[in-house]
Amino acid sequence: MAVYTDVPDDELAAFVAEYDLGAVTAFKGIAEGVENSNFLLRTERGSYILTLYEKRVRAEDLPFFLGLMEHLAGRGFACPTPVRGRDGIALRRLCNRPAAIVTFLEGLWPRRIHAVHCAGVGGAMAQLHLAGEGFALSRANDLSLAGWRRLLDASAERAHEVRPDLARELAAELAWLEANWPTDLPAGVIHADLFPDNIFFRGDRMSGVIDFYFACNDAFAYDVAIGLNAWCFEPDGSFNVTKARALLTRYEATRPLSAAEYAALPVLARGSALRFLLTRLYDWLNHPPGAFVKPKDPLEYLQKLRFHQGVRDVGSYGLG
Amino acid sequence: MAVYTDVPDDELAAFVAEYDLGAVTAFKGIAEGVENSNFLLRTERGSYILTLYEKRVRAEDLPFFLGLMEHLAGRGFACPTPVRGRDGIALRRLCNRPAAIVTFLEGLWPRRIHAVHCAGVGGAMAQLHLAGEGFALSRANDLSLAGWRRLLDASAERAHEVRPDLARELAAELAWLEANWPTDLPAGVIHADLFPDNIFFRGDRMSGVIDFYFACNDAFAYDVAIGLNAWCFEPDGSFNVTKARALLTRYEATRPLSAAEYAALPVLARGSALRFLLTRLYDWLNHPPGAFVKPKDPLEYLQKLRFHQGVRDVGSYGLG
Repeated sequence: MAVYTDVPDDELAAFVAEYDLGAVTAFKGIAEGVENSNFLLRTERGSYILTLYEKRVRAEDLPFFLGLMEHLAGRGFACPTPVRGRDGIALRRLCNRPAAIVTFLEGLWPRRIHAVHCAGVGGAMAQLHLAGEGFALSRANDLSLAGWRRLLDASAERAHEVRPDLARELAAELAWLEANWPTDLPAGVIHADLFPDNIFFRGDRMSGVIDFYFACNDAFAYDVAIGLNAWCFEPDGSFNVTKARALLTRYEATRPLSAAEYAALPVLARGSALRFLLTRLYDWLNHPPGAFVKPKDPLEYLQKLRFHQGVRDVGSYGLG
Repeated sequence: MAVYTDVPDDELAAFVAEYDLGAVTAFKGIAEGVENSNFLLRTERGSYILTLYEKRVRAEDLPFFLGLMEHLAGRGFACPTPVRGRDGIALRRLCNRPAAIVTFLEGLWPRRIHAVHCAGVGGAMAQLHLAGEGFALSRANDLSLAGWRRLLDASAERAHEVRPDLARELAAELAWLEANWPTDLPAGVIHADLFPDNIFFRGDRMSGVIDFYFACNDAFAYDVAIGLNAWCFEPDGSFNVTKARALLTRYEATRPLSAAEYAALPVLARGSALRFLLTRLYDWLNHPPGAFVKPKDPLEYLQKLRFHQGVRDVGSYGLG
C-alpha cells in the first residue's frame, strides 16, 4: 500500500493542464505498489494512473523504464503506455518528484494462483522478451551477483536475528553462485519482478503487465527462473510441478528455450531465490518501526533456495 | 490509507455475480478512509466503490448508514448510492465481513482549503439537513456528552504522556459542557464528520459528500460547529473569519439558523473540539506500534477548544 506524497489541488490541476486530457474528474490514492505513490486519475478523456517516483527509484533509470513501456506497447505488448504532455515529454515533475501519467490497464491481479495464471505468466514473459528487441536503451541488472554480495555484506552482521547461522549459509550459497553463474545465455530486456501483483487477468485471460521498475538487461532464462519462484510454490512451501509445466510450456510456445537455457535453470533459480531472500532480509532488518509496509518474510525464499539446491535437472520443474 | 482485507478472485467474482453489474474489469485498493477497506471496482456497467466494513464500524449501524445514503440520494442529495443485488439487498457479506457496493462519485476532495470550499461545505451541510427529513431510521450520537465522559475516563490516566495536566483541563471542560450543553435545538440527521476528505469538488463546485459512518441524529447546529472546527482554522491554529463567514452564509442561504442555534454555536464548537480531541487522544495512546495509520495530533484540537472558550458571541465567527 502506498501513497507517500499527497498532491495539492493547484499542483495537480497545473500538472494535468500540460496534457491534452481535459479537466480532472476524480483522483484517488491507490493502495498498491510499495516503491512509488500511485493515483487513479480520471479526466474528461478517460482513466489513467499517475505515479510519483519516490526516492527508492533512481531518477536516472526513469527514461529506461518509461521508454521501455512505450517501446513494448508500440510492439503490441499489453502494458501501460506513458502519456506525453503537449510538449512531447512524458517524464515530468510534480511535488518536487519525477512523475508520469500512464494509461489505465484493465484487469485484476490474481490473489489465488491457478495453473492457468502460470500459463498466462509464461506467455506474457515470452512475448515481453521478444517485444523488447530493438529497444535503444539498456540498464544493467544491479540486483545480480555483484548486488547480492553488497546486500549480504550489509545484512550479514544481523542476519542471526532472523535465523541462527543464516549469514554463513547465504555466504556459502553466494560463493557457489559466483563460481557457477552462467554468462553466455541469450539475453535482452527482462521484467525481473513478474510477481502476481504485477500481471492482470480478465477471467483466465492475461490482460497486461505492469510495474517495470526492476526491468533490466539480463538472461531471458533468469526472468523465467524468477517466475518459477514467484508462481510455482504453494503457500506451504511445496513446489507445484503442474504450475511450473504450465509456465514453461506456454513460454516455449512463443519463445523456445535452448538446451543451455534449460541446463541453467536450476542455478538461475537458486540465484533468483537468493536475490529475493537478500532484499527481503535487508528490508526486514532495516524497515523503520511503524512503517506503512509490513516487510515480507525472507525465510520463504530460504525454503525455495533449498528446494533448488536439491534439483538435479529440469525434470524437477516438470519438463524433460 | 486503508485496505485491511484483500479479496480473493473467486470470492469477488461470486460476490459481484449477485448484482446486475456484468463482469469485473478492474479492482484496486484505495488508500483513503481509515475505518474500512475500500476498493475501486470497475465492471462492464461502470465504476463503483466496494467497501468491506471492518470491526470499528458496528454491524448493527450499517442499515442506518446505507439506508441514509439511499434516502439522501433519492432526495437529490449528491452522495454515493448503495447498489442493490438482484435480490434487492444492498448490505451483503464478503470475506466474512459486511460489505456493500455504492456508486462512484466524481470529484476531488480539497487538499488546500479556500473560502469557496467552506461555502460549498456550508451549502452541502444545509442541503443534507433538509434532505434527511423523513428518513425512517434513527441513530443516537454515541460521540456526544456520554461518549466523551467514557473516552476521557479511558484516557485520563495516560493523558500526561501527550501533555502535562491535560486530563485536568479536559475534565474541567467536560464538566462545564455537561452543565451548559443545549438540549432543545432543532435536530435531525447530521453527517457529524464532514472533514475535507469527505466532500468532493469539481473545480470550485461541490460535487458530493461521502463517508456517512458517523452520521446520527443530533442538533443541526452541532454539525455546523464541527464544520467550523474542521474547515475554518489555518494550519498555524488561527481562526479564519472569512472562511467561517463563507460557511455560515452559504448554510443559511438554504437553511437559516434560529437565534437559539446562533447563541449555542460557541458551546457546540467547544463540544465538537472536545469530541475530536478525545477520540484523537484515545487513538494516540492506543494505536498499535507499526500501525498503518499515523494517528492525528490531539493537541490541534486543544488549540481549537481554547479559541472557542474565549469566544463571547458569534461575532467571533464572522457574523452578527
